[in-house]
Amino acid sequence: MYVGRFVVVSPEVGAYRVSSRSFPNRQAVQRDGTVTVEPTPDAPETDNPYISYNGVRVTERGAVVGNGSHVDPIAEKLELGYPARDAIAEPLLSLDFEKDDYDTPRVAGIVGVDAADPTTNADGPGAVIGTVRRDALLVEEVTEPTLVATYEENSPTAFDLAATDASDVAREVYDHEYEHAVCSAGVAGSAGEFDVAVYNGE
Amino acid sequence: MYVGRFVVVSPEVGAYRVSSRSFPNRQAVQRDGTVTVEPTPDAPETDNPYISYNGVRVTERGAVVGNGSHVDPIAEKLELGYPARDAIAEPLLSLDFEKDDYDTPRVAGIVGVDAADPTTNADGPGAVIGTVRRDALLVEEVTEPTLVATYEENSPTAFDLAATDASDVAREVYDHEYEHAVCSAGVAGSAGEFDVAVYNGE
Amino acid sequence: MYVGRFVVVSPEVGAYRVSSRSFPNRQAVQRDGTVTVEPTPDAPETDNPYISYNGVRVTERGAVVGNGSHVDPIAEKLELGYPARDAIAEPLLSLDFEKDDYDTPRVAGIVGVDAADPTTNADGPGAVIGTVRRDALLVEEVTEPTLVATYEENSPTAFDLAATDASDVAREVYDHEYEHAVCSAGVAGSAGEFDVAVYNGE
Amino acid sequence: MYVGRFVVVSPEVGAYRVSSRSFPNRQAVQRDGTVTVEPTPDAPETDNPYISYNGVRVTERGAVVGNGSHVDPIAEKLELGYPARDAIAEPLLSLDFEKDDYDTPRVAGIVGVDAADPTTNADGPGAVIGTVRRDALLVEEVTEPTLVATYEENSPTAFDLAATDASDVAREVYDHEYEHAVCSAGVAGSAGEFDVAVYNGE
Repeated sequence: MYVGRFVVVSPEVGAYRVSSRSFPNRQAVQRDGTVTVEPTPDAPETDNPYISYNGVRVTERGAVVGNGSHVDPIAEKLELGYPARDAIAEPLLSLDFEKDDYDTPRVAGIVGVDAADPTTNADGPGAVIGTVRRDALLVEEVTEPTLVATYEENSPTAFDLAATDASDVAREVYDHEYEHAVCSAGVAGSAGEFDVAVYNGE
Repeated sequence: MYVGRFVVVSPEVGAYRVSSRSFPNRQAVQRDGTVTVEPTPDAPETDNPYISYNGVRVTERGAVVGNGSHVDPIAEKLELGYPARDAIAEPLLSLDFEKDDYDTPRVAGIVGVDAADPTTNADGPGAVIGTVRRDALLVEEVTEPTLVATYEENSPTAFDLAATDASDVAREVYDHEYEHAVCSAGVAGSAGEFDVAVYNGE
Repeated sequence: MYVGRFVVVSPEVGAYRVSSRSFPNRQAVQRDGTVTVEPTPDAPETDNPYISYNGVRVTERGAVVGNGSHVDPIAEKLELGYPARDAIAEPLLSLDFEKDDYDTPRVAGIVGVDAADPTTNADGPGAVIGTVRRDALLVEEVTEPTLVATYEENSPTAFDLAATDASDVAREVYDHEYEHAVCSAGVAGSAGEFDVAVYNGE
Repeated sequence: MYVGRFVVVSPEVGAYRVSSRSFPNRQAVQRDGTVTVEPTPDAPETDNPYISYNGVRVTERGAVVGNGSHVDPIAEKLELGYPARDAIAEPLLSLDFEKDDYDTPRVAGIVGVDAADPTTNADGPGAVIGTVRRDALLVEEVTEPTLVATYEENSPTAFDLAATDASDVAREVYDHEYEHAVCSAGVAGSAGEFDVAVYNGE
């Protein structure tokens, strides 16, 4: 099954995977807690504005994962003090689904949310997942590994994730049976201390 | 089971029912397409700000149902041109759950959305349902009768509704087995032509 | 000149005054850091939903003043962690101007904002003022006493305020030459420690 | 004086000019009603995410001008039915000021707003201008040419613009005495019929 790009979120582990039929020549590059999805050096030129973006950003109040330019304002609103739920909901409502041929949804999550955050009920680290589609805006706390993808699995749904280490997480979601894996990133930890890893295949 | 206040939404029929343990002395009063929930003449005085509000408001672009003061801005944003999904999402995000002892969620829906609305996929009239809880903001199109309640059933879920006439709808949700019915309202039709009815028990 | 209801905001002093031609029988009542504007016992009955509301609410992160039901969500978003600017902007955008015969703007302010708030530049306590009109949404930090009123003076403008004590502030704005004073409230202090006072004429 | 990037907005004419000290090697390129600001072929490589974006986008309900990635969601929300004021306010609130070394504000405007838009009072075409700074969110209707720039002139202020033709407008703002002009775009017309032009110096 092809589900497009997807995030997996749980209280202390998160992941983002690029799956793509139309533009596979991309890689995940890590720099200081940020993972950028960008064309490989040999990729054909394109005007598509959805090719390059930050897919992971670590903040002091949680690690954000997502499939597009909304990752930045989510991370920034979180840093400015927004509760995790609102930090996802406001940028998703505003930036909306991608205006491409598929009305591609935006998906996002925050991992390792501070226990003091008012929008998670967790005693320890919390997690929030969200998506905006043409016909829905869904943002909710999750306590077990949960996936939301741009196609098919486009509402939050339980996901079987075994890995707990950032590198293993990146590898596990890359190797998942969902089709057309391009690159992936994993994050593990909680507010104040996160490990980040990427995997671009062999 | 006690699920508190709830809405039921489908493309051409909607309902709102007040269920209450703490303040049962209320009635639904209809005036020109608006249903107001208000204390009965013999109700005890209260400072509770959540007792009185418009539970239904008909507009040219859809009929709004909900359990509190968010019904007004949802109806107003819809009239100003917001797509149905956004007209629900923005006021729910802003007004948030009720700051009472139960963190009571806000629930809402729009029935009979114009087929031209960009956030419904329906060929004919569309419907959107939503709720905001401390831990979630959920807004989505529905194509079959769907319920969301303040407690227990606090995510949108399929609901078995037989009636199609406004009066029958009000009566059917009032008579539902969920406990502590106080009053109810039903709405039927589509953008431009709605029937509204209330039921306050015998 | 009749400017309707107005707020005055500065870093450590704020005020709200009700001015009204159509419904003068109201009073400001203080309870635990909240000032409620409500009909006097002898006021005629009315269906007008804009008569009663909280005009002042003190929080740990600033004291909110305003002319309607938006004061509550502003105070609540501030308490949930929103920066002061955003805590005003989001509810004003969502609740919008009042849908009465005058398209009455909503006006609001926050006094004594914590110096750590990212949307004020102040070294000490900060202040933010805002209004939403049919044709504008204006929210900005202020460093000197600034007024915004529902009519005529409907953009933030410098205001000559001498008092620094909550009671004196309430009295000074009540006595201002702007017409049709009904009642007023004053607040003084900064995050964590506010004095609140009301004045209802002699 | 160096005011950075700026927009000029009036009911039937609008402009956007890039002024830059740090990255002058850019050009304005027009394609089908969209003006993209992008590096010239000989520009040095950069990681700066604020270099490339759509500075003008024409829609059926108005022509949007602005200094960054917010131009797209503003145009998209306008097309989805948002009133002009809200189509500017929501993306500006969400995307916020740029997180660069200067907390660079976002500036935007809509020209030729349909007379039916509820947030303009104009009998004919309307215009709305807006900016978000760390300390303010300002969105308002304008009836005469009005400028807002990222620095110095960072609140809407009257601007002396003589040209009425898109090409002349682009040229006039490029030639303005404000320092470090890089490229510019002009738009003229009203909803349903706009001319767009760019000017990149000689």
